[in-house]
Amino acid sequence: MNGAVSLLTTMEHNDVTTCFMNPGTSEMHFVAALDDVPGVRGVLCLFEGVASGAADGFARVTGRPAATLLHLGPGLGNAFANLHNARRAHSPVLNIVGDHATYHSRYDAPLTTDIASIARGLEGWYRRSARADDVAQDAADAISAACGPPGRIATLVLPADASWSEAPAFTIAHDAVRARAGLVAHESVEEAASLLRSKRSALLLGGPALRRDGLAAAAAIAEATGCKVLSETFPAVVDRGAGIHAAERLNYIAEFAMAQLEGFEVLVLVGAPEPVSFFAYPDLASRIVPAGCIVIDLAPLHLDVVRGLVSLREAVGASDASPAPMDASRPARPSGALTAASLAAAVGSVLPEGCIVVDEANTSGVGLPVATQGAPPHEWLTLCGGSIGFGLPAAVGAAIGGGGRRILSIEADGSAAYTPQALWTMAREALDVTVLCCSNDSYAILNYELSRVGATAHGERSKAMLDLTGPTLDLAATARSFGVPAETVTTADELVVALDKSLATPGPTVIDAKVPSIIR
Amino acid sequence: MNGAVSLLTTMEHNDVTTCFMNPGTSEMHFVAALDDVPGVRGVLCLFEGVASGAADGFARVTGRPAATLLHLGPGLGNAFANLHNARRAHSPVLNIVGDHATYHSRYDAPLTTDIASIARGLEGWYRRSARADDVAQDAADAISAACGPPGRIATLVLPADASWSEAPAFTIAHDAVRARAGLVAHESVEEAASLLRSKRSALLLGGPALRRDGLAAAAAIAEATGCKVLSETFPAVVDRGAGIHAAERLNYIAEFAMAQLEGFEVLVLVGAPEPVSFFAYPDLASRIVPAGCIVIDLAPLHLDVVRGLVSLREAVGASDASPAPMDASRPARPSGALTAASLAAAVGSVLPEGCIVVDEANTSGVGLPVATQGAPPHEWLTLCGGSIGFGLPAAVGAAIGGGGRRILSIEADGSAAYTPQALWTMAREALDVTVLCCSNDSYAILNYELSRVGATAHGERSKAMLDLTGPTLDLAATARSFGVPAETVTTADELVVALDKSLATPGPTVIDAKVPSIIR
Repeated sequence: MNGAVSLLTTMEHNDVTTCFMNPGTSEMHFVAALDDVPGVRGVLCLFEGVASGAADGFARVTGRPAATLLHLGPGLGNAFANLHNARRAHSPVLNIVGDHATYHSRYDAPLTTDIASIARGLEGWYRRSARADDVAQDAADAISAACGPPGRIATLVLPADASWSEAPAFTIAHDAVRARAGLVAHESVEEAASLLRSKRSALLLGGPALRRDGLAAAAAIAEATGCKVLSETFPAVVDRGAGIHAAERLNYIAEFAMAQLEGFEVLVLVGAPEPVSFFAYPDLASRIVPAGCIVIDLAPLHLDVVRGLVSLREAVGASDASPAPMDASRPARPSGALTAASLAAAVGSVLPEGCIVVDEANTSGVGLPVATQGAPPHEWLTLCGGSIGFGLPAAVGAAIGGGGRRILSIEADGSAAYTPQALWTMAREALDVTVLCCSNDSYAILNYELSRVGATAHGERSKAMLDLTGPTLDLAATARSFGVPAETVTTADELVVALDKSLATPGPTVIDAKVPSIIR
Repeated sequence: MNGAVSLLTTMEHNDVTTCFMNPGTSEMHFVAALDDVPGVRGVLCLFEGVASGAADGFARVTGRPAATLLHLGPGLGNAFANLHNARRAHSPVLNIVGDHATYHSRYDAPLTTDIASIARGLEGWYRRSARADDVAQDAADAISAACGPPGRIATLVLPADASWSEAPAFTIAHDAVRARAGLVAHESVEEAASLLRSKRSALLLGGPALRRDGLAAAAAIAEATGCKVLSETFPAVVDRGAGIHAAERLNYIAEFAMAQLEGFEVLVLVGAPEPVSFFAYPDLASRIVPAGCIVIDLAPLHLDVVRGLVSLREAVGASDASPAPMDASRPARPSGALTAASLAAAVGSVLPEGCIVVDEANTSGVGLPVATQGAPPHEWLTLCGGSIGFGLPAAVGAAIGGGGRRILSIEADGSAAYTPQALWTMAREALDVTVLCCSNDSYAILNYELSRVGATAHGERSKAMLDLTGPTLDLAATARSFGVPAETVTTADELVVALDKSLATPGPTVIDAKVPSIIR
């Protein structure tokens, strides 16, 4: 077998069975090897940023790495933003970056690039396979690194000659080491338990703590100690809905988050970093935790976060506590004007059980958390790295990893326009994705941020840079051009009907909802 | 004035008057400063890869740098591929990358990124402004670096506090140093002249040598010495057409380029690197110059390439030579089936004088060079870095920099789908761009490359990765969704009519031409 077949065999053997890709000449042997290794599925994307976002979405819903196949430095560059988002979500991703043959790089042909430097920006694992014999072991090491804990981005550079040369030494795929998360120290649990019992405290949950079991343990701790249960602002995946215990999400706006944290003497971090302001603002501190508040990092993500939370539950004597989870409740089906509120009610009124929501609604999504909290159980994915263009690609990956579950991709027009090519892959793979695009014809968040940072757009020239009219985007038409059925809705009534229809129809649909900006 | 106004003032003062941008929160003061510095025009792009490609196109047609405004590391990542193409074109580009306030970076908020590492992959100039006082000098230094010679990518990181703080020390904008290109040494000219007179020789022109004056000098040298005049494979800009002297472009396919170079004992490089194979292939050497051929790097791009060529003309005694330039001639307006040949004839039959052609036609463009060589004088831009998604963005920049000249953007479907958002900026800015998209529903080049690298796609799973059907892209519909009038043509007759109409109509048009792949 050649290096490429050796690589795909190693991937298959280690349960990396999906590769989101946009290949070039240096990756042709990898492409050909798809015929030899049927256990690895290639999914073609029209742009590498779709491939990387899809790998993130896949990893979040499966807990397993997907692979990307990228074409030299520019391919990794195109993938970078969504790899950054994946890094912040701690998603395990295996990047395979094809490169020139080892002996060809010295000639500085046009595509020659410093791949290592770009990869360094991902702060993960990096290696270049020197020869075909090494590829299997390198791939196994990359998969080990990607899986963590915590998950990270592993970038394996595959020179063309390592791909096409025979790999006689390793014909048997290697086992990737799957490291087991360490345990939270008993003393740390006792310290946290003691503080929770004696001081005004909050738990801040992140990562795996936001899945069903973690939330249940946190709710029991809260019942026993009176502490508050908070969620990090941008979770990778959170279990939500009727029958699940809720955590109050810290607001993106630092001033609001500071109000949520006010008065706490202790903040116990469980799978989440200390919260800070998303951006700096001239008259606002970066740290948002109250002065004097004790911050305890109980369970960083390289440890077993959920087990740490269960230990804490025992330590506070809450083993038998059984607080009620969220009641089932739905907003009424809204009627009348389309607003952020009626849009949220529409989503809450129809959200199906088991749905995976990919949330890049930005400002228009302000009402969604409350409107959906009592819906049937569902998973909610958010933009963890702050780089827009995440949602549609992540929906592709979530659909492929989600085992037939319906994906609801709630988008904003400015974000959707970053990576609209994802729609084509949804059509090609016939993915069950309902895209609800909140179109307000502006980068609304920036109109808000502009004044927050103390800047004034006093003229038309600056305002134009935040404005998406002239021409207005027609995302329904864009979707149809990529093969996805689409319609535009302008009232809440139309939206509910369109959602009902889309959720009941196999394959992808785009609903372009013209909802006015909440920012004046 | 604050740092942002200081920056824009410095840009304006140094003739960097266009900024292609997609701002975020950390760039809000830059955006606001557009109202204070009317000499700098902001052009909004829906994706940073459009901004960087537009800056490349602008630089190529004006010889002056444009700026980009990007949002932290992910914004630079999105811009990377077209910055790579710009780097390979030696285009001067000033990247301004907004970043967190200096004191905020330590908190590792979600968008915090290692911008320096990503920038390192561009192999240009890099600096982070530490404070508002430094911004003017840093900007002037960045512009100096960008201008070269040769042109390069200069990346200036602008922390939010350097942008919003007062900059009292430097209220007067600085002069960027515009370095003058050095001269080719007399001895080098004499050596080259001697070899040209005595051996079978070829000149390989690149960079500024491919503009009208360089081509004329080269033609005179050829007349006097019998040498052949070749062009690098992927020129940044070449002057072409009736009344201009031609240079034969080295073929992308290494085997064909080797045939073009066969028999030469001397190859004189004038503004071009030694040609090598674009990719490595298992049974092909990377170097394509014949064994034993003497390669002389007469005029690297940091020297005055055209003046070096004029000196060589004098040295070979060709000062009075006046070889005939290309005759005016056009193909007849084609009729019948749409093929790569009839498409090329259609372009050749209508190409208007002064047109700027942005060529990302890839395989479907095979007939264009011959069909357009006798058209009225025009400029031709090619994809220098090999990363597709260049053409539509570069057309935006060429149109804005081109002073009202018509842009003909010849695209391929796979490439156009990389950065379709550029169409929106064409509509918004009412740019006179005719986009001719050659749609063959495949990554045709890869079907060719697959066998060249010795891989075999023997199954459907591999072939599907090179195939753009299921669903077929409808780029005319995509264009309309971004506000650009568009039509689809399926015959040569329809194409000629559509081209005539588009060229006579102000503003952008997309013509989606369904032309079968030349690859079987």
